[in-house]
Amino acid sequence: MSIETRTVEYHDGEDLFEGLLAWDDETDALRPGVLVAHTIRGRTDFEISRARKLAELGYIALALDVYGKENIGSDIEVCRALMDALKADRPLLQRRLRSALSALRQQPEVDASRLAAIGFCFGGLCVLDIARTGEEVAGVVSFHGLFEPPGNTMGNRITSKILALHGWDDPLAPPESVIELASELSGMGADWQLQVYGNVRHAFTNPDADASTGVTVYNAAADRRSWLRMLAFFEELFEEDL
Amino acid sequence: MSIETRTVEYHDGEDLFEGLLAWDDETDALRPGVLVAHTIRGRTDFEISRARKLAELGYIALALDVYGKENIGSDIEVCRALMDALKADRPLLQRRLRSALSALRQQPEVDASRLAAIGFCFGGLCVLDIARTGEEVAGVVSFHGLFEPPGNTMGNRITSKILALHGWDDPLAPPESVIELASELSGMGADWQLQVYGNVRHAFTNPDADASTGVTVYNAAADRRSWLRMLAFFEELFEEDL
Repeated sequence: MSIETRTVEYHDGEDLFEGLLAWDDETDALRPGVLVAHTIRGRTDFEISRARKLAELGYIALALDVYGKENIGSDIEVCRALMDALKADRPLLQRRLRSALSALRQQPEVDASRLAAIGFCFGGLCVLDIARTGEEVAGVVSFHGLFEPPGNTMGNRITSKILALHGWDDPLAPPESVIELASELSGMGADWQLQVYGNVRHAFTNPDADASTGVTVYNAAADRRSWLRMLAFFEELFEEDL
Repeated sequence: MSIETRTVEYHDGEDLFEGLLAWDDETDALRPGVLVAHTIRGRTDFEISRARKLAELGYIALALDVYGKENIGSDIEVCRALMDALKADRPLLQRRLRSALSALRQQPEVDASRLAAIGFCFGGLCVLDIARTGEEVAGVVSFHGLFEPPGNTMGNRITSKILALHGWDDPLAPPESVIELASELSGMGADWQLQVYGNVRHAFTNPDADASTGVTVYNAAADRRSWLRMLAFFEELFEEDL
């Protein structure tokens, strides 16, 4: 195995974005492509580490960017403003996600007929929006994602399989929002699954989560379980006819 | 592989029960024991088939009986009365489950330090009661189980890991009962997980479910997914330190 990375620049109109692609350079075969959508913090080492782990497992992973190249590495206040602006303009967010997906499709290592997307926190909302907008990806996986519906996708049919990995005590996605999401996804005809972890809060995959306020708390068991759950889902997407 | 079965009689006081044990006779090593708790219909070929599948995977499986040997094979009205009586007397149900667990422990093929229990529909309620009463089993798995709390276990600590496999549109376990279960299990300190399948109803593992009323509906994808999910849970219980 020889994991390589390169930056991938792509545009949405005038705006420039910079993703990071990770792949195993020891094979020439076309492989499934996986987007990795970032948290509120933008594209950081966290997403890159996940992209590398996916590459080790045989996927071509693109850690995407929806904030813009010049904003990578911005401090939390800037990131929060960027996120809030995109949450307030979901069609813009969805366009940027489509651009990232298009960039992934164009990478020569990628089998463009076999795509998936995963995302963490805000990135969970992003990958749900990829499904909601009807993009042709086999499946999406939300890790402790935000569930707020975008408001512009009702009536769409969702063709991507959906897996949401969720801490039951996540203050940013309380039981009411789980019920709302279930209703939304069922109404859109989605094949959806929700994996709930008891006694688990927001950001459970992030070892650097600031647990001081009780909102974001790393949970080693849920971190490991959710990654394995995602892999089982990918096996279903890419290796089996279920 | 050479799957064998034998009946196992056991008592709770004066009452006689008959389980069916399945194991692979080609190895002498002690192996984890798994109880298989039955639906409203009592111990039928359905539970025996699951016990045999578990035996093929290396477990020693006991399809238990909580209705009594003389009631095996009874018609649905008799079974419903037996179930209702046990749901109305949960301490009695819990005693019978303890007797079944004790019978499993005593089988010479079983590693009594590595036990689990799975159950379907009413059997899901049974295995949750095994956890609620603090029995020393590593984990329990409920397939489209009923969640009603027993009323006599509040204040107990649950040490068994719990996995509930649940159809979101199960009319016998609506979202309110999911929320209630989550609160109950978290309050008892349980390590619990809930796997939800969207657009799936009650009895989704049973190919013979009568779908005419919309309550019980077989779902091939959820059937297969839930079995694989259980196996991943067993790997966590018996083969890994998580």
